[in-house]
Amino acid sequence: VDSARARAAAEDAVIVVAVPLPAVDEVLRRIAEIAPRALLTDVVSVKSPVVAAVRRIAPTARYAGGHPMAGAAVSGWAAGSATLFEHASWVVTVEPDTEVATWRAVAELALVCGARVVPATAAEHDTAVARVSHLPHVLAAVLASAGAAGGPLALALAAGSFGDGTRVAGSRPELVLAMCEGNREQLLAALDDALGKLGVASTGSLGATVRSGNEGRAALTRVQRGQRTLAKLDLTAADALDQLAELGRRGGWITGFDGDTALAELPEIPA
Amino acid sequence: VDSARARAAAEDAVIVVAVPLPAVDEVLRRIAEIAPRALLTDVVSVKSPVVAAVRRIAPTARYAGGHPMAGAAVSGWAAGSATLFEHASWVVTVEPDTEVATWRAVAELALVCGARVVPATAAEHDTAVARVSHLPHVLAAVLASAGAAGGPLALALAAGSFGDGTRVAGSRPELVLAMCEGNREQLLAALDDALGKLGVASTGSLGATVRSGNEGRAALTRVQRGQRTLAKLDLTAADALDQLAELGRRGGWITGFDGDTALAELPEIPA
Repeated sequence: VDSARARAAAEDAVIVVAVPLPAVDEVLRRIAEIAPRALLTDVVSVKSPVVAAVRRIAPTARYAGGHPMAGAAVSGWAAGSATLFEHASWVVTVEPDTEVATWRAVAELALVCGARVVPATAAEHDTAVARVSHLPHVLAAVLASAGAAGGPLALALAAGSFGDGTRVAGSRPELVLAMCEGNREQLLAALDDALGKLGVASTGSLGATVRSGNEGRAALTRVQRGQRTLAKLDLTAADALDQLAELGRRGGWITGFDGDTALAELPEIPA
Repeated sequence: VDSARARAAAEDAVIVVAVPLPAVDEVLRRIAEIAPRALLTDVVSVKSPVVAAVRRIAPTARYAGGHPMAGAAVSGWAAGSATLFEHASWVVTVEPDTEVATWRAVAELALVCGARVVPATAAEHDTAVARVSHLPHVLAAVLASAGAAGGPLALALAAGSFGDGTRVAGSRPELVLAMCEGNREQLLAALDDALGKLGVASTGSLGATVRSGNEGRAALTRVQRGQRTLAKLDLTAADALDQLAELGRRGGWITGFDGDTALAELPEIPA
């Protein structure tokens, strides 16, 4: 592995750190020794702790964090797939100290894997995934637990709504917990929000909750399957990083590069 | 319609009340006038209010309530399907004053439609569906609303767990609210339970919530797709109604009749 890192340094290849969060520090220490100026990314599902670790342990590395949002319920070598990243969203982080050339090198890696590249700050990424990746696992667990508390009769009567709502509760608890623990602070904020909304529903304003949920679901459909606008970003602009972050904030992504121009798509969201 | 009711009375046919809950009283008043001893059932998704209305308005009718647990997101004549009830669970209510012959006549109607018949008291039915039909809609709304509050970036990053968890939030709000309002008291109890579990998750015991949810999901799989035991119930027994209710309580259902014997299946649940 050390010889691979040395070769990466010699060839200026992108080093991809693909280990669980608790193992990141140790890997970064080896990289800082052998390839301190390496082009560096990672695929950890939470970004702020990795950005902080790189600043602390490998501060001279040319780093942009990554999170390919693809996966399967199965794991191990046999679960490998050459098409895993096709059409997936792959977040590449944009921080004030990110170099545009570094960001682009990592984005190009994601693009050749078939993914679309979503630029976001580490903090915005972590806030977003707390709501759309981690909160769904907690609510699925709550629903599965509350349903099972109804006994065999309730489970025998469960249909599509309960089956869909509890599907990810079938995930391995240790994997779910590791994912949630890594993003603890943001998840707690999302849980507080969900608790507030559920509390409102239980104290007489069920209509507001149900209508707000219906609007949220419609917004999901618009962002994911609605009309899209094409856009171009000039990567030589002084505020290129800000423009990338703003594109991500608006639900957009990068589909490729043409010279110094990043080609983008973004959903048309009615005002 | 009145002539149909008169003909039903003459032929001792089963009258099926298939109107929304707010319209039930008026229909029962007409039935009480024209066919006071009618064989009677209904297909309203909540059972205690209908049982109470029958006792009040049509007390001499031979009634067993029904709830065919099938449906689609579309409605109207064009959404009709001859196979809608195949393999669906169809609850037929068992109350202390239910006559076994009445219960069987309604159960046979469900069986010829291709459904399996789940016996349950109206109260137990309402408690169960609050947890597995109504609570899923509220939690889906909470999740969709909390996700959309994360803005377009969050929605662009949403994947399978968020999509599954919010699917029923796409249902028409007025239909969801009508369904929930009809079972308000039981739903509030289920919401309290969910609030408690979510509160536990947000105050440091996420592991307990996630593991309990994983066990709940495994219990669902066992009840719905696990090994089944065959059983027979003697409908001439003095406690036949209690036996039917107990079968339902254990997650079992009736698949047919052989003379005075009801043929049952029930899930094998490990102790």
